[in-house]
Amino acid sequence: MQSAHEVVAAYWAAAEARDWVALGALVADDMLYQGPQTREQVRGRDAYLRFNAEGFPSDWHVTVQRIVGEDSHAASWIEMSEAGETYPGLCFFDLADDGRIARITDFWPTDSELPEHRLHLVERY
Amino acid sequence: MQSAHEVVAAYWAAAEARDWVALGALVADDMLYQGPQTREQVRGRDAYLRFNAEGFPSDWHVTVQRIVGEDSHAASWIEMSEAGETYPGLCFFDLADDGRIARITDFWPTDSELPEHRLHLVERY
Repeated sequence: MQSAHEVVAAYWAAAEARDWVALGALVADDMLYQGPQTREQVRGRDAYLRFNAEGFPSDWHVTVQRIVGEDSHAASWIEMSEAGETYPGLCFFDLADDGRIARITDFWPTDSELPEHRLHLVERY
Repeated sequence: MQSAHEVVAAYWAAAEARDWVALGALVADDMLYQGPQTREQVRGRDAYLRFNAEGFPSDWHVTVQRIVGEDSHAASWIEMSEAGETYPGLCFFDLADDGRIARITDFWPTDSELPEHRLHLVERY
């Protein structure tokens, strides 16, 4: 059985290739996807493949920054490139006993202002 | 030597306890903290302890949702409670050879609107 790290590496390779058959083979029938920022969720493999295939129609590309896997858990930090912009995406994965992805929690942080009270404690880059 | 998972568990326990001595013992002398959303960074243990002690003066509390560790890398998903609100914080950690934290990349996603073109593909929760 593949490690959680290997499963998530294969997940991002399949996503980048728009290989929905390969992606579908990595997720559990009754998987749950959640996006806490919008409070959106998708339940089940078929709905999740449709969500991926139809929900993000632009010419996006993924570059993996980190994948960390431990037992049945993993996390990934990717950079998404889309329409000349690049922004980070962070996912936490929980795997079922058979090694398929049972749950994905997906975060998309956006640029924000540095609070004034912290200005003297940091550098900018 | 502690595993990356154990180091990050100790990191959040020290942060929650405001135990800056314990937190300082977990990070490398020349550590680098980066917050990509504000493009702020802090270099070195002393500056980082000051950043933690003085940069976040409110009565915040941390609840760990996930810690994933693998070799010299780890990720954490916490929920931060502050002034009656709870919001997620996501960190990626890189450890030095001696097991201390050499680099932290810190993300704070905020609530966002669900794009209309995706409404028919998801449920709300």
